[in-house]
Amino acid sequence: MDTPARIWTAALVIIGDEILSGRTQDKNIAQIASWLNVQGIRLKEVRVVADDQDAIVEAVNLLRARNDYLFTTGGIGPTHDDITVDAIAVALGVDVVVHPRAKMALEGYYESRGGLTEARLRMARVPEGSELIENRMSGAPGIRHGNIFIMAGVPHITAGMLESLTGKLEGGLPLLSRQVGCWVAESEVADILRATEKAHDACQIGSYPFFREGRVGANFVVRSTDADAVDSCIADLKAALEKHEHAVIEGGI
Amino acid sequence: MDTPARIWTAALVIIGDEILSGRTQDKNIAQIASWLNVQGIRLKEVRVVADDQDAIVEAVNLLRARNDYLFTTGGIGPTHDDITVDAIAVALGVDVVVHPRAKMALEGYYESRGGLTEARLRMARVPEGSELIENRMSGAPGIRHGNIFIMAGVPHITAGMLESLTGKLEGGLPLLSRQVGCWVAESEVADILRATEKAHDACQIGSYPFFREGRVGANFVVRSTDADAVDSCIADLKAALEKHEHAVIEGGI
Repeated sequence: MDTPARIWTAALVIIGDEILSGRTQDKNIAQIASWLNVQGIRLKEVRVVADDQDAIVEAVNLLRARNDYLFTTGGIGPTHDDITVDAIAVALGVDVVVHPRAKMALEGYYESRGGLTEARLRMARVPEGSELIENRMSGAPGIRHGNIFIMAGVPHITAGMLESLTGKLEGGLPLLSRQVGCWVAESEVADILRATEKAHDACQIGSYPFFREGRVGANFVVRSTDADAVDSCIADLKAALEKHEHAVIEGGI
Repeated sequence: MDTPARIWTAALVIIGDEILSGRTQDKNIAQIASWLNVQGIRLKEVRVVADDQDAIVEAVNLLRARNDYLFTTGGIGPTHDDITVDAIAVALGVDVVVHPRAKMALEGYYESRGGLTEARLRMARVPEGSELIENRMSGAPGIRHGNIFIMAGVPHITAGMLESLTGKLEGGLPLLSRQVGCWVAESEVADILRATEKAHDACQIGSYPFFREGRVGANFVVRSTDADAVDSCIADLKAALEKHEHAVIEGGI
């Protein structure tokens, strides 16, 4: 038997009272998860913590130790509630320093926007030993320190930072998926799903029910790093569903 | 000095590969956070974990111990990938049993829908010692065991379960908030925000920048359990912003 391929993992810490208060609907989990899949990295766990140093330190230190990569979002702006850089420096046991290239980038960006004030200079502060992650959406860069990637909270700025990291992180085989859908209650086909997954070792099947247009239905997602295994599992699943007279919609509903 | 009022806290564990793979955009964090605020309970921390027993047990046991309430969403359907009930029973060290009233509810619901199959009966399984949480959206109830509330993953079903819990959980003072907005880069007013927060002990100020209609702006949210404190902080913040010739939009932008 072949040695199974190594699975590269990442964790995400979302930092922000605005998410925990329900004020802001998070969009970074789905955005970063989808991006990581393409890099061959699995998002293994996510935590949402308050703008609170102890909470950030606890999450960062545990999750960076047990994953290949750790991403954070939020709390890197110029205002008093932006404490991510300071908290991560505490977690790492290093000082906070002004990064010369970040300062230059901010000077350039703010030259025509009122100049680099003390508040804006806060955005050039990094844990000592950091590199910058480019961000073409605004003057403020993201920050990389070892396996930690410190990103913005505003989703379109995070997107710019992810773009500049694309293809640069070592990963494994991307997780592939295909789905089919049926207008059926998932409880009617639970036995078929279980038996099909059992017969296809390399695959996982997820069942995602919904209620739409006044009818119940479900999508069945087959996931694996092996494209042939996905295709063969989907073919067997389709055959089994059709044998029980459930019409199958390729690509899902 | 008065003793500060007790703050009641909750944690949320979101269980589901579909969130971690980026397939599904979570909506339960914002929904549950907003509902908890009204009950006088603060959402303190959230974790998203895979459909994996060890990950669920770890999160549940830590978070139920350090919060007044623990909510979970996802993984309580009839299919093989629904392992929440089993995992929480392991976390609690109790058996999984069929709850008679849940079985009756499912029998009623499925009477005209093909009958109660073995797969459907899975949805009547609970950790021993549980009560049910009504759900008028479908036949499957949520589950309460001590301070743990096991809810559906599909947001509109979760909403039905929250509705039946409304007003039934002991909480403290609800966290109140008011916001004002300015068409200004938050970095221009960082000093005003910091000074205003410092002058108002009972309040926190959050600054939430955005880029919209080709312009930068920010909303400033003042939060406190004391309505007078919020009003007084908002008044001072407004005065300080206007003194610096920033037009303030009540209620935010």
